[in-house]
Amino acid sequence: MGRWEPNARERLAEAALGLYGERGYEQTTVAEIAKRAGLTERTFFRHYADKREVLFAGSRDLQELFVRAVADAPENAAPIDALALGLHAVCAVFADRRPFARARHAVITANAELRERELIKLASLSAALADTLRLRGVAEPAASLAAEAGVSVFKVGFERWIAAAEDRDLAQLVREALTELRAVAAGS
Amino acid sequence: MGRWEPNARERLAEAALGLYGERGYEQTTVAEIAKRAGLTERTFFRHYADKREVLFAGSRDLQELFVRAVADAPENAAPIDALALGLHAVCAVFADRRPFARARHAVITANAELRERELIKLASLSAALADTLRLRGVAEPAASLAAEAGVSVFKVGFERWIAAAEDRDLAQLVREALTELRAVAAGS
Repeated sequence: MGRWEPNARERLAEAALGLYGERGYEQTTVAEIAKRAGLTERTFFRHYADKREVLFAGSRDLQELFVRAVADAPENAAPIDALALGLHAVCAVFADRRPFARARHAVITANAELRERELIKLASLSAALADTLRLRGVAEPAASLAAEAGVSVFKVGFERWIAAAEDRDLAQLVREALTELRAVAAGS
Repeated sequence: MGRWEPNARERLAEAALGLYGERGYEQTTVAEIAKRAGLTERTFFRHYADKREVLFAGSRDLQELFVRAVADAPENAAPIDALALGLHAVCAVFADRRPFARARHAVITANAELRERELIKLASLSAALADTLRLRGVAEPAASLAAEAGVSVFKVGFERWIAAAEDRDLAQLVREALTELRAVAAGS
């Protein structure tokens, strides 16, 4: 496996985001990413399957974390309260990643294939959350609707969090989005 | 423009769906679709840009109808009530299209590219509804959250409507999904 490279994964991600932003995602090669990070291509491929995975590896981790928190919610928690616990868990992970999230968002927004991939990841998250709620005994269509609501709240809160002038916490913005969704659904 | 062909558009759509279901979407050509419909390729291209558009032309019409109904809702209607009017308008259009919708859904589910396209169409619908709500004076994040909720309610109601044993109306299933979303958001 070669020698141990301190923070190789993070260095590669940072180098990749920098290059995607400067030259465009399509124009950047794995060789260039490795070079900027001061690492070899071989090291790159120990951490990421390809240059797209640098952008989406985090989505998989997020889904696992979100699902686990919902699954572990107290047995008697209402679906929306179980989802709130999941949202809280994922927000904690993002706390110090705003610059990365902003750079990532700019790259994805500029590329149709990446935008599609992002939609697929969100649909996958929603499906996984609906499965989890059903395992908790939530019937349909409540499970699917609650899962979709949870993803919408995360998405809207996240988009506000990465907006240019925004400096509030992700957790706060997501909580506000959940409160707002409740108000909207109640007809206010 | 050639001679007038009665119901050419519908005949082409029916022929296309039949072939996509029997042979697979990828394996079907426009020539085969036109032949089964008893029409020419030239007529096909007067109605659809390509074989994919047979599946997605309806999504564009749906978006226009949905957006117009939300825009035309009474000025003092709450966002969720404006959306309910939009949902009601689109459900009316689908009333007699369940067999087509079921066949279309089976084709889309079987093909990754088409599933992505469907996600893009739903994201586009959500963005258009959020724009419409903002034009009605709804602030963010309420506009985006309400739009996402409206799309989720439609999606979940629609998926139940096309389920194998289901025979209730789309309008009824969508109304139930909206009621269920309100209950979920309220924490029940």
